[in-house]
Amino acid sequence: MPILRLCVSVDTDIDPKLYHFAQKLAEADQSHLLQFWSELSSEAQAELTLDLQGMDFQEINGFFTNAMKRSSLSKQEKMDTRMEPVPREVLGSVTRDRDSVKDWELTGLQCISQNKVAALLLAGGQGTRLGVAYPKGMYDVGLPSHKTLFQIQAQRIFKLQQLAEQKHKTKCCIPWYIMTSGRTMELTKDFFCKHKYFGLDKKNVIFFQQGMLPAMDYNGKIILESKGKLSMAPDGNGGLYRALGNQGIMEDMKQRGIKFIHVYCVDNILVKVADPAFVGFCVQKGADCGAKVVEKTNPTEAVGVVCKVDGLYQVVEYSEITLTTAEKRSADGRLMFNAGNVANHFFSFSFLNDVVQEFEPKLQHHVAQKKIPFVDSEGQLIRPDKPNGIKMEKFVFDIFQFAKTFVVYEVLREDEFSPLKNADTLDGKDTPTTARHALMSLHHRWVLNAGGHFIDENGTRVPAIPRAGAADTVTADGSRTLKDGTDLPIKCEISPLVSYGGEGLEEIVKDREFQPTLMIDEHGVHELVTNGI
Amino acid sequence: MPILRLCVSVDTDIDPKLYHFAQKLAEADQSHLLQFWSELSSEAQAELTLDLQGMDFQEINGFFTNAMKRSSLSKQEKMDTRMEPVPREVLGSVTRDRDSVKDWELTGLQCISQNKVAALLLAGGQGTRLGVAYPKGMYDVGLPSHKTLFQIQAQRIFKLQQLAEQKHKTKCCIPWYIMTSGRTMELTKDFFCKHKYFGLDKKNVIFFQQGMLPAMDYNGKIILESKGKLSMAPDGNGGLYRALGNQGIMEDMKQRGIKFIHVYCVDNILVKVADPAFVGFCVQKGADCGAKVVEKTNPTEAVGVVCKVDGLYQVVEYSEITLTTAEKRSADGRLMFNAGNVANHFFSFSFLNDVVQEFEPKLQHHVAQKKIPFVDSEGQLIRPDKPNGIKMEKFVFDIFQFAKTFVVYEVLREDEFSPLKNADTLDGKDTPTTARHALMSLHHRWVLNAGGHFIDENGTRVPAIPRAGAADTVTADGSRTLKDGTDLPIKCEISPLVSYGGEGLEEIVKDREFQPTLMIDEHGVHELVTNGI
Repeated sequence: MPILRLCVSVDTDIDPKLYHFAQKLAEADQSHLLQFWSELSSEAQAELTLDLQGMDFQEINGFFTNAMKRSSLSKQEKMDTRMEPVPREVLGSVTRDRDSVKDWELTGLQCISQNKVAALLLAGGQGTRLGVAYPKGMYDVGLPSHKTLFQIQAQRIFKLQQLAEQKHKTKCCIPWYIMTSGRTMELTKDFFCKHKYFGLDKKNVIFFQQGMLPAMDYNGKIILESKGKLSMAPDGNGGLYRALGNQGIMEDMKQRGIKFIHVYCVDNILVKVADPAFVGFCVQKGADCGAKVVEKTNPTEAVGVVCKVDGLYQVVEYSEITLTTAEKRSADGRLMFNAGNVANHFFSFSFLNDVVQEFEPKLQHHVAQKKIPFVDSEGQLIRPDKPNGIKMEKFVFDIFQFAKTFVVYEVLREDEFSPLKNADTLDGKDTPTTARHALMSLHHRWVLNAGGHFIDENGTRVPAIPRAGAADTVTADGSRTLKDGTDLPIKCEISPLVSYGGEGLEEIVKDREFQPTLMIDEHGVHELVTNGI
Repeated sequence: MPILRLCVSVDTDIDPKLYHFAQKLAEADQSHLLQFWSELSSEAQAELTLDLQGMDFQEINGFFTNAMKRSSLSKQEKMDTRMEPVPREVLGSVTRDRDSVKDWELTGLQCISQNKVAALLLAGGQGTRLGVAYPKGMYDVGLPSHKTLFQIQAQRIFKLQQLAEQKHKTKCCIPWYIMTSGRTMELTKDFFCKHKYFGLDKKNVIFFQQGMLPAMDYNGKIILESKGKLSMAPDGNGGLYRALGNQGIMEDMKQRGIKFIHVYCVDNILVKVADPAFVGFCVQKGADCGAKVVEKTNPTEAVGVVCKVDGLYQVVEYSEITLTTAEKRSADGRLMFNAGNVANHFFSFSFLNDVVQEFEPKLQHHVAQKKIPFVDSEGQLIRPDKPNGIKMEKFVFDIFQFAKTFVVYEVLREDEFSPLKNADTLDGKDTPTTARHALMSLHHRWVLNAGGHFIDENGTRVPAIPRAGAADTVTADGSRTLKDGTDLPIKCEISPLVSYGGEGLEEIVKDREFQPTLMIDEHGVHELVTNGI
């Protein structure tokens, strides 16, 4: 590349640092990153310089080599034969171990009251698939209250602290660690600041930032997304562990005396933040690592499953198993691999510390083939129509394999899991509409189970399971077959400040009749008469 | 009503028949049906006369009295305490009794080869909720082949006959009885005629018509939808039994030597018409009546459940039970009342005959409160905004209680049940899109299980469970959590003429790679390259 050599030699007269970079890059075989240097404005040059300064190219090349080796090794066929389901003895189930749940919850509440429990939120993602440029946590799914995911989660933490305090007559707090990324850090911090941390104590909301890695082509060359800008992406939610170390989070936890950490993903509107039952179950089992799961009931459901591979626990991606394995069933008729991962985990502090200090560096990155826009050697921006390179990611569950005592906690999907991933579309899954409906349906059930009733505009009681659209249609074929009623929930929203998990509603709703929209919050009970959803 | 008396007395001079009606109506306290007589054109008078001729007002009044009594008696609270789940010994499950399924299927095929099995289609409904005015069976859900529900079902019958013939080296046929209603009869017959009965023998496709009943106000007065027209609706899919008797269908079955009847509803795109495994299971169990069910997994799913009430089998509507009952679970963690009715039943001929002759008349109608447009005493058309009257329906499952040996057959929802009920909407359930996707997903799995593979536009193999929308998006939070893959199925459709239930595909697809859209029909294998769904 004569141009490069020229521009380098020229610029080095003015800028020895560039010369230093040029060397570094040449050694790492990434010299092409400077090929447009001479065409850049001085601002652009400064920015590029800044970007390059932070990067260890030898390390990145190492990541690439290992990641590619790993991905070429992992053959589907192999994986299937190496998989074993989760044994019953490490499984706790809210449906099969109903009698223990209350006890687990008490243990969890006690740990919380002793300031031993922290919540850790994975919020490095933008709402790309959702069609927004800001962090998912700032999204308003259109609840009557128009609360965002961040506010809902903050208020659940606030309420849970209260419950623990009331139970154990002592002040306590659940520190909330929020992992952002280069793309979401500022927006997230500003949002929390603007909303006064939703009533939480500012010093107990700790932001930190996951790392970024460059996208690379199949030859290991870092991709330029413009003449002066590298194509960068967050290093996966497994970037958590590195960030915990290099940003002093473990130290902060240590000083606070945190013993147990609940890690979860921002996009689940039903998430029980710091779920005392889950924490209590893991603590009683003496687990250093635990995964909350929901039952996978459909073989082709695109969900990773928690299982053993060669005797070690991990999450096997749905794309890594054959249909034959996905369709395998146990004697009880359930899918054999049915522990559906919901990115909702428990770690003991000591285990997390070992991971950060010792295990994480051993983990290799996963390869995700992507269509990555790039500038060609003429400087033209190209948007490829087929994958042209990779992004490298680690996953939060990659470290399950290092656990000494690993447990699995199975909960009900309709009670605890409804992720927000996509914009509303026909037959949309995991959309603002499904998330909103899931929350209102849960709160509707809370009211009914607390002895409340709902009436329609004519004052007649609505059955527990409203008949979708039957009010004015004659279904002449008399069909009374499956129709998922949850697509027409009673409009009902209960503030987390009033109830964390359905508790404490009897005195408010028992034997009362409500006409939707029902809202119960810290200011009382409100009925907003509306039509439809 | 002076006007009425006047017009009657006047008209009776010319029309003694009207006088006769007037008397009949007066005795039945329905005289208001003639209140606009003098304002009607002679054509309208003729039509009204025709309508009134067919009706037995005393009987209708009796229906009304009993139906109202029945509905006022049925109290939710009561129902809950009287319910028992289906005992395991009467249950056959494709997931829990896997080893028996093949054997059941063989028995079923033998019965079919002996011309003992008939299919009976409930198709009295219009696509009202679907937003079309024609019969649901004529709907095209947008499959690559653009086949309608009628064609798909016809071809399954055709193929099943072939399979039985090949297996037992004998010609055989599965008569297809199609129950229409006053609203769908002509359109349905014309459609079949136009399409040459989709390859079936015309004499083995038998149409008959369910009855209609007038809508009535809460005082038992028949509602006029216009000055000269009664508001009529089909009498529910339970109208089947009356129609079977009064239209000579039982006689026809007898002459053909039919011993077993598979009754199903038109709207299920995955329906296994005359399912040999289901038939064989019921036959082996010596059942006179059987219900196919899918597992209800979500307490608030709007599905009727098969269970015992006061020791007798019936379907309890989701609107009839409290949430507490809906949420009850067995020790194995499953919902206690999880036998979700899919309007898919087995009857022995002798049982069906007893029902028609003896039991059906004992059944009382269910009351459905509706908003029914009516003309007021001034002749103005009123569209009420709250229920103002009732429609009376019987349900096909009302006769379960009379069975001597009742069995339940549990199948997988993703394999056998995807009803078409509603137009496409956000978060739509049971829509053309969900039906289309369910069928293509099933056929995709057939191909994979027969050893075929799918490749994308770059020639790389698509995993068994395609990762929805991952091709170009970086999910920066690395979220690898639940996402129902079935919303983005591989486009793949296999004609029933090629495979009834996934059988016989090895020789066609084994070790071959296909690029969607894949279509396999009687003319061979076709690959139509398309983008997305």
